[in-house]
Parts: sequence; structure tokens; C-alpha cells
Amino acid sequence: MKYTVPKGTRDFLPAQMLQRNYIFQTISTVYQLHGFVPIETPAMENLSTLMGKYGEEGDRLLFKILNSGNFLEKASHFDDPKKLTTEICERGLRYDLTVPFARFVVQHQNELTFPFKRYQIQPVWRGDRPQKGRYREFYQCDGDVIGSNSLLNELEFLQIINEVFEKLGIRVVVKLNNRKILAAIAALIGQEDKLIDITVAIDKMDKIGIDQVKEELLGKGLKEEVIQKLTPVLLLDGSNAEKLLKLQDLFVEIPIGQKGVEEMQTLLAFANDLAFSSTIDFDITLARGLNYYTGTIFEVKSADTSIGSLCGGGRYDDLTGIFGLPNLSGVGISFGADRIYDTLEELNLFPQNLQQSSKILFCNFGEKEEKQCILWAEKLRKEGIKTEIYPENAKLKKQIGYADAKRIPFVALVGEQELAEQKVSLKNLATGEQISLKIEELVNFLKN
Amino acid sequence: MKYTVPKGTRDFLPAQMLQRNYIFQTISTVYQLHGFVPIETPAMENLSTLMGKYGEEGDRLLFKILNSGNFLEKASHFDDPKKLTTEICERGLRYDLTVPFARFVVQHQNELTFPFKRYQIQPVWRGDRPQKGRYREFYQCDGDVIGSNSLLNELEFLQIINEVFEKLGIRVVVKLNNRKILAAIAALIGQEDKLIDITVAIDKMDKIGIDQVKEELLGKGLKEEVIQKLTPVLLLDGSNAEKLLKLQDLFVEIPIGQKGVEEMQTLLAFANDLAFSSTIDFDITLARGLNYYTGTIFEVKSADTSIGSLCGGGRYDDLTGIFGLPNLSGVGISFGADRIYDTLEELNLFPQNLQQSSKILFCNFGEKEEKQCILWAEKLRKEGIKTEIYPENAKLKKQIGYADAKRIPFVALVGEQELAEQKVSLKNLATGEQISLKIEELVNFLKN
Repeated sequence: MKYTVPKGTRDFLPAQMLQRNYIFQTISTVYQLHGFVPIETPAMENLSTLMGKYGEEGDRLLFKILNSGNFLEKASHFDDPKKLTTEICERGLRYDLTVPFARFVVQHQNELTFPFKRYQIQPVWRGDRPQKGRYREFYQCDGDVIGSNSLLNELEFLQIINEVFEKLGIRVVVKLNNRKILAAIAALIGQEDKLIDITVAIDKMDKIGIDQVKEELLGKGLKEEVIQKLTPVLLLDGSNAEKLLKLQDLFVEIPIGQKGVEEMQTLLAFANDLAFSSTIDFDITLARGLNYYTGTIFEVKSADTSIGSLCGGGRYDDLTGIFGLPNLSGVGISFGADRIYDTLEELNLFPQNLQQSSKILFCNFGEKEEKQCILWAEKLRKEGIKTEIYPENAKLKKQIGYADAKRIPFVALVGEQELAEQKVSLKNLATGEQISLKIEELVNFLKN
Repeated sequence: MKYTVPKGTRDFLPAQMLQRNYIFQTISTVYQLHGFVPIETPAMENLSTLMGKYGEEGDRLLFKILNSGNFLEKASHFDDPKKLTTEICERGLRYDLTVPFARFVVQHQNELTFPFKRYQIQPVWRGDRPQKGRYREFYQCDGDVIGSNSLLNELEFLQIINEVFEKLGIRVVVKLNNRKILAAIAALIGQEDKLIDITVAIDKMDKIGIDQVKEELLGKGLKEEVIQKLTPVLLLDGSNAEKLLKLQDLFVEIPIGQKGVEEMQTLLAFANDLAFSSTIDFDITLARGLNYYTGTIFEVKSADTSIGSLCGGGRYDDLTGIFGLPNLSGVGISFGADRIYDTLEELNLFPQNLQQSSKILFCNFGEKEEKQCILWAEKLRKEGIKTEIYPENAKLKKQIGYADAKRIPFVALVGEQELAEQKVSLKNLATGEQISLKIEELVNFLKN
């Protein structure tokens, strides 16, 4: 019998942990620099909190937890898996960090300071079919500001995105759009219900050209004269500012469109002042979770790989309304740790020194010597130097092999002679160089 | 309808998160100083990995996850909850960190360097009835060394325990015993099966005296002459060394007892050299998970509160045998984050400066001013100073209230005059003191 992790889940070994912690640490540090504070919510939520929040597919992919005790006593619908499930399961695993956060804000509204800026780095679980790059357990790194309508919040997320990827060394393109602009496009042609078809088609302009896009829209049931009205949107090009000016003209009689263009102009003007290293691209085809967002939307992709979205988010007007606290506007983003990991790996951008565990290993030459090494090792640790003693008097080759495998750069050899001289023979495993040091000299050597 | 977390689980608010991270950080730092490397395992394991590892009660308290899809099709035992459960659930939530670690070691044995020293800080889930201090989701902070029989490993855990609680400022008593000594006591009187009754009774010596203890043992079915043989064990007192010498005499014909005494003597001699600040107490009544440990066992309690065990562990000889990899000896401990939290809270030992989020808040006086503040705030962040801008031009009182609530010590006031002079009016919210600084001066002021 083979014992392994469940399909779609992963163990993280030490080397991966160090790399993943580097990502989480970078993201946390940037959030903290901007005054975000951390929260955590439990892995399990009541199903009443989760169900119906992620569409029909989400309800299906939620991991549900069996009630304990005599769960069968309450059950009756053995003919219907859906009804039976609600009878025998009251809790489910977190599916994202957004819905639990909304529940959190409502539950703790009197303990929080608004605008509330929180970040949250925790795993989520989805019963998706596992495949390359898609897991059943994966981490999200969310930041949200709730309780403020100001565009300064959108700007702050642009800053955070820019700083995180700058620190990680990943060149990115940040795509921006605004839900109000998308609503205005639909209003422009009187086709509010065809918005997704339209954005999908616009997105293909570059590749297939205007005639084929129009054909596709005809196929989706749009009338010839309606598509005609869409032509200026299809032909939209130029710089961010130029595109926005053209839209301003088109939306002259559509207030929501004017508002959307104005928001985008303000945000881009702010961004311009800050001279980001990331490319900021106003992209009318960016749609992301239409039923959810109400203002600015973000999506971040690597400029140098074909790995999908590394980060995304947007403005929502009423996240907590579903839990009985209406009219609380917010904006948030989510970094995808796994895709960022894959990008750093593909571009070979992980810092090399992450791999190091201890700085030095004291080799073990027997009882008398180890007694001395215990005391010296303790001296090094008191100075913050990561230090190990090999726990057994094994063959030296084996002990050195242990240091090599753990990428420990130095070994201390303390045999009878060193004991008599009260010195350590320090060997650099990379160069083979060996020097003799007093313990105080060793401390200074390793601290620098 | 009230939306809350499930019974026995908790949200962690920012202030608690900072306190909890302080605990996790302290423990990780000490583990790392000793060359331990981090791993993580998935929240869910196959039930075949978990079931039968925690006794009957554990099997019952394991949270089981409902299979997705047509789970009913495979089911037939609707009359028997136990059998039905195995038909409709293939996975369960992690119940502790030890069994998943054993599975991890077996699964990845060819990727690991032995002796393998890992630490792991993750939540576990148990369907216990929730009560004060007992939760259904809680964190464990485990460290284990696997693949070495050396007592240096036990010593290292004593060092780790001592350093963690020294850093946290908690005075502790570390109780030590050895499973071999307990086995020898049972062998001494030929009552291997009554071991638990015996240790429970011995534990009461201080409170109820030898006569009552003997009465209790009679009640448990021990014969008069057997109890007589136990008298020297019951009367065991003195220093750690004295107690061990007496046991050495008692166990003269019991090899396992001699081995146990010798191990304890070696360990205590090591510990003596290191002059720990913690009290080390060889305690013959310490029993902990008898079926599991085979050598030294540890338990740590606060010297100044009545809160239970803060940390515990021991030596096991064959943890991975259940997963098909026999004869791999190990030793490990587990810190209980919640009890450590409660201890720090009760003794008022959390550092005061943990509460601080940002160092400075730029108040918002309107569009023109905020444009300048955005640039100045960015300068501070580049220097690593946690900085916020209030996102809206709200009443100053409200903005200052926000800083107060978030314990931000300084606010920057940038109005028309400051803009003209290119200076910041910096207000210390604790003292009310206000000074005028250029941005470079502000950077220096806040960096120190």
C-alpha cells in the first residue's frame, strides 16, 4: 500500500518552503509598508455562509465536511445527493478569502477601524479536477480596503502591485479597466445582456481583425445595425490617454461611462506621477468577474512568460450586503502564490542564498569533543548564527555529506588537538580552505 | 440571520495576529538557530493515512470530508453511520502534525537528508466539544529529529525549550521522565498492565500521603505484597541525581531500567553544563501517551500560572513503521500556541510595541495636498517606514481618530502653507508636540 497526499494537494519540502516563504514575506512586507494589518479566518465556515456565493459550479466544488456523531438521524433524502448533503454537512472549507472576509467584517464591524485595510495569506480549497498548475489546496494573498470610495485606494493597490513585483524582480504588465466603462459600452448599443460576448469578441481584434469580430458578434445574435454602433469601440487604439478621450466622446450621453472614464483618467494621472517600473495598460477587453465588481478592475501578467494572471482584483460596492451590512464599498486584490512561484522558477529569479539552512556544522568526534562543541555551538547561537552539531560520532565523510546536502557552507572540526589548543579548525566546504580559530574569532568570522 | 464562525473556531483580528505571529516567529527563530528546516503538509489527508492512528476517540473526532460528485452511488450502508462514512468520505482534516509527518518522511524518504530535522507550524482540527481553551481548530508548532538515536537530540530539544521560553519571558519547569524507567517500575512489581494506575497514584503522593496512595492501589486490584515492593518508588525523593541513584539500585536486575536511568543521567549531565534558566525536574509521575513513546519524555509548564502543559514530546522508536518504513528512531516536541498565548496574556508579557501598525499617517486636506503626500509617502516607504495616507478629505478629527485607533504614533499635516514651504508639520499624538520638517529630515526622524 502506498501512502501519499490526496490528489491535487502537495507537501512542501524545506527548499520549496524557503522559496514560498520568500514570496509570502515579500508580499506581507509591502502590504505592511502601506498600513495593511493581517487577519486570519478559520479553514471551515458554516455552509450557510459559503453556499450560493460562487455560482452553481462553486457550490459543487466546495469541500463539505461531514457532521460528526449521528449525522444519519437527521437525514431523509437518500435519493437526492444535493438534499442529503445539506442534511449531513453543516460546514465547508474556505473556497476563497473574499467571502470569509465579508463575513468577518460584518461579524466584527464594531471592533474594526474603517477604512479597514487588511491582508490575509491563507490556503483555500476547491474540488476542481487537478491538472498542471491547478491544485485543490492553494494559497491566496489578499489585500482589501473596505469603507472608502476614494480612488487613492485603487492607486495604493497599483503601488503595492508595482512594489511587490519590483522586489521579486518580475517585469509585469498591469491591465486596468473599469466596470462602468464596460456597462457604458453595453448601454451604448442597448445590449446590457450581451456584455460578455462583446468583450470576448473585442479581445480578438488584434488576432482576427474587425471583419471576423463582427461576424462572431452576428453569430452571437447581435443585429447588423447594433454592431455598426460598436465600430468606434472596436477600432479603439492609441495611448491610454488617447483611448480615454475617444471614449469620452462616445459616452457623451451616458453618465456612467463619463464617470468610468473620469475615474480611469484620475487613476492614470496619479500613476503617472509615481513613474512605476511596471507597464500600466488601460485595456477595454479586460472583464474579470463581471457580476462582482463595480468600478476599477486590475489584472497582472508577467511580461516575460506565458504564465497566466499573477494578481487580479477590483472595486466592489456592496460586498457585505449579502451578510446584512449594505453600502460598504471596497477594493481589493489577490496575489496567486503558485503562479508567482512558477514565474520565479521559469525566469530563474529566486535568490540563491535562500537555500542555506545552517551556517555551520560541528562535526562529532566522540563524547569528550562533543561536550566542548555543545558549549561552543551555544555561543554561536547566542550571536544569532544558525548552528548544528552532528548528533552522532559517524564517519567524517558521512558528516560532511550531511553538511553538503543541507548546503551548510562551513564545518567545524574539533578533535583531540583542537580541544587541547582550545581552537576550532574551520573548513570552507566550497573552497576546501581550512583555518584555525579561537571561538571568539569564529564568532566574528561567521557574523560578517 | 446571524453569520458567525463555526462553533469552536476563531477569527484572529489584527492585534491578536501580531501577538500570535510574535509567538510563531520566536519559535521558528529558535528552531532555525538549531538547523531545523520548515515543511508543510496539506490540510487534508487520505482517511487511510489518518484512521486508526489516534485510537477510537480520534477516529470519531477526525473531521471527514464528503466526496464530491455522485458519492451516493457507491454507498449502501445507510443503516450504519460508521460504514456509510467510509463509503462517502475518502479524506479527512489533519488531526495532528505527527502522523502526516510520518507519512511525509516515508513518501519523500529519498529526497530527505537524515538525520532530518524539521519544524512545522500549521493548524490541526478536532471535533472535540468546544470549551474554554479548547478549540476545534488550533495551531501546533512541532519539531522532530528523525533518523538518529543520539541523546544529543534530546538535549537539543531541552535547549530549544529553554531558549523559546527565555525569549518569551515565561519562567517554566521542564518535567522529564523516561519510558524505560516507567517500564522498569512495572516490571519491578510484575504489573505491566497496571502502569497507568500506578503513575496516577504516585502522582498524588505529595497531596494525600503514602497510606492513601496504597489504599488507592489496593482499590485498583493490586495485591498487598505487590504494593509493598513499590514502597521505595513511592518514597522516592531528593534531587534529580539522588532519585536516579536510588532507582539505579532498585533496577539492578532490570536492564531496561538501568538503560533508562543511564539515559536520564547523561541528559541531565549535558543540561547541567549549559546552566539553563528553566528548572529541569526529573519526575517519575510524568507519563504522556504511553503507547507512543519509547524513551525520554518531556512536559513544560509555566512556573507562574496554573495553565496546563505549554509544550511536550518525547522519543519514539518506530513512528514510520505504520507506513512501511520500520526502525527509524526519532524524537520530537510540540509547542501549544494557544496556551502560550494565554500565559503571555495572563502574565502581561507581550511586548508593548507589537500593537503598532503604521509609523505615520498623512492627513488628507484635499486634492492638491494629497498629490504631494503621495510622493512623500512613497519616499518614506522606500526607506522601510510604514506609511499611510488617509484616503479621503474627511474632518481632521476623524482622521486623527483613525490614527489613534490604529495606534499610529505620528500624523503628518500638509496643508496649503506646508505645501508652499515644502515642509511637513509632524504631530506626535502621544505628547501633542508638533514640529516642522523637510521631507529628508522627516525620513531621518522616523528612521531612528
